[in-house]
Amino acid sequence: MSRLAYLGPAGTFSEQAALQYAPQAQHVPFPTIPAVAQAVEAGMADEGIIPIENSLEGAVNDTLDLLIHDSVLRIRGELVVPIEHCLIALAGTAPDTIQAVYSHPQALGQCRQFLERRFPNAQAIAALSTAAAVEEMRSSSVPSAAIAPRRAAELYGAEVLASAIQDRPNNVTRFVVLASADHEPTGADKTSLCFSFDDDRPGLLYGVMREFARRGINLAKIESRPTKEELGRYIFLADLDGHRQDAKIRKALAAIQGQVSLLKVFGSYPRARG
Amino acid sequence: MSRLAYLGPAGTFSEQAALQYAPQAQHVPFPTIPAVAQAVEAGMADEGIIPIENSLEGAVNDTLDLLIHDSVLRIRGELVVPIEHCLIALAGTAPDTIQAVYSHPQALGQCRQFLERRFPNAQAIAALSTAAAVEEMRSSSVPSAAIAPRRAAELYGAEVLASAIQDRPNNVTRFVVLASADHEPTGADKTSLCFSFDDDRPGLLYGVMREFARRGINLAKIESRPTKEELGRYIFLADLDGHRQDAKIRKALAAIQGQVSLLKVFGSYPRARG
Repeated sequence: MSRLAYLGPAGTFSEQAALQYAPQAQHVPFPTIPAVAQAVEAGMADEGIIPIENSLEGAVNDTLDLLIHDSVLRIRGELVVPIEHCLIALAGTAPDTIQAVYSHPQALGQCRQFLERRFPNAQAIAALSTAAAVEEMRSSSVPSAAIAPRRAAELYGAEVLASAIQDRPNNVTRFVVLASADHEPTGADKTSLCFSFDDDRPGLLYGVMREFARRGINLAKIESRPTKEELGRYIFLADLDGHRQDAKIRKALAAIQGQVSLLKVFGSYPRARG
Repeated sequence: MSRLAYLGPAGTFSEQAALQYAPQAQHVPFPTIPAVAQAVEAGMADEGIIPIENSLEGAVNDTLDLLIHDSVLRIRGELVVPIEHCLIALAGTAPDTIQAVYSHPQALGQCRQFLERRFPNAQAIAALSTAAAVEEMRSSSVPSAAIAPRRAAELYGAEVLASAIQDRPNNVTRFVVLASADHEPTGADKTSLCFSFDDDRPGLLYGVMREFARRGINLAKIESRPTKEELGRYIFLADLDGHRQDAKIRKALAAIQGQVSLLKVFGSYPRARG
């Protein structure tokens, strides 16, 4: 049985992504995004799954920084998971007695209007994860609730008081699957990479983009992250339509090699449906 | 006396930025980034100052989203503030008795190695802000500390046990000053803007960048944010060297207008020194 490392603990959207990606695999939780990658690098797991982007919040910076700086793993898959926040409480809790609502600050933020409308007098309390929020809700001295995935209620024997409580629709998270090798071409692929420059002259980024544009390669995404050495210096991340073994992407990457100080291809993988 | 709105409460790095930008102004705290902007829009303050980018963490997404979606204000200034985290405790607290360390998850993350080395047995506890962390430290039932700016210790009568405890040097945050109008040209300016496309054809982003590159305009930064409507659709944010009244930037913006579905110029302002 293959082993799939994920960002734990159980009961998070990352576990849900792991179940969706490989229902038959053995799912092994790790406490941080770097720990998931290290587990795969050390052979403790065959693959690892981590969040990379949310449709409302944008990029997951820890994952981008891991790919740029700290990992030799390749991206071999992606999948998109709907984020449905639930309000969870101990069985028998009357909604109108709730005095505190625990969750990760990001989940509290995504459900702010719901909380203001339905629980105007409850205190919002930050937790380090949605799973930690459920633990704190369970040990709270006052009637409390937590915002967490439905799966957390199942695991912790709690009750779902309300579901899909996020303020905005279209809340989905894209996850990537890391392994020692990326995916062979399927005909509907994406390639993710990063690059940077030693210099800050006009037109450097443009020069790289020209190599894609003149070959008709679609740049599905461009993102920048700080180099962490100096404010105003960036590493650029791009997603291209196509596989790195496609002739036109191979040629574009060869042309770019001479223009950048760093070029790292994270991998090519089948594009997620939907 | 002019009134400067900032992201409160007092004792945060944002207050420090407000003091540094306009020491003589009346500094008025607001609880959120949108509330700072609304205060300026409503005439309750002449200017507002908010963080936009950290050299280690990257963009402050709430500020980017405010500029894109929710504000008619212009950027009329920027400044760069060093982020020096301090370990703060009630007077007389012996460091080796500390059982809990409170702070915002981002500050806890930036000082993780320090905490592991010096306080391996203390529990890290999330707070909604560094100022809230100081409050929670003060009311904790066990000997505790908070990670916060030095200014918080002055304001709350607490003691600085250790300073500059962040794991990495080069930790600075860039703030922008919002007002109803941007800044007149000074000869050393920057222009910030965003744009997006209705379509997802190859070469659209490249077409916009070509208008800057062929006029020798340096693109100091490019960033993308989700449109919040659909995963995989982005709004691009760019910082250009130069003022929007410069002939070449005027011409580039006119040429771009026909290629994009949205173009919003956030403003031109003097480039920060350093």
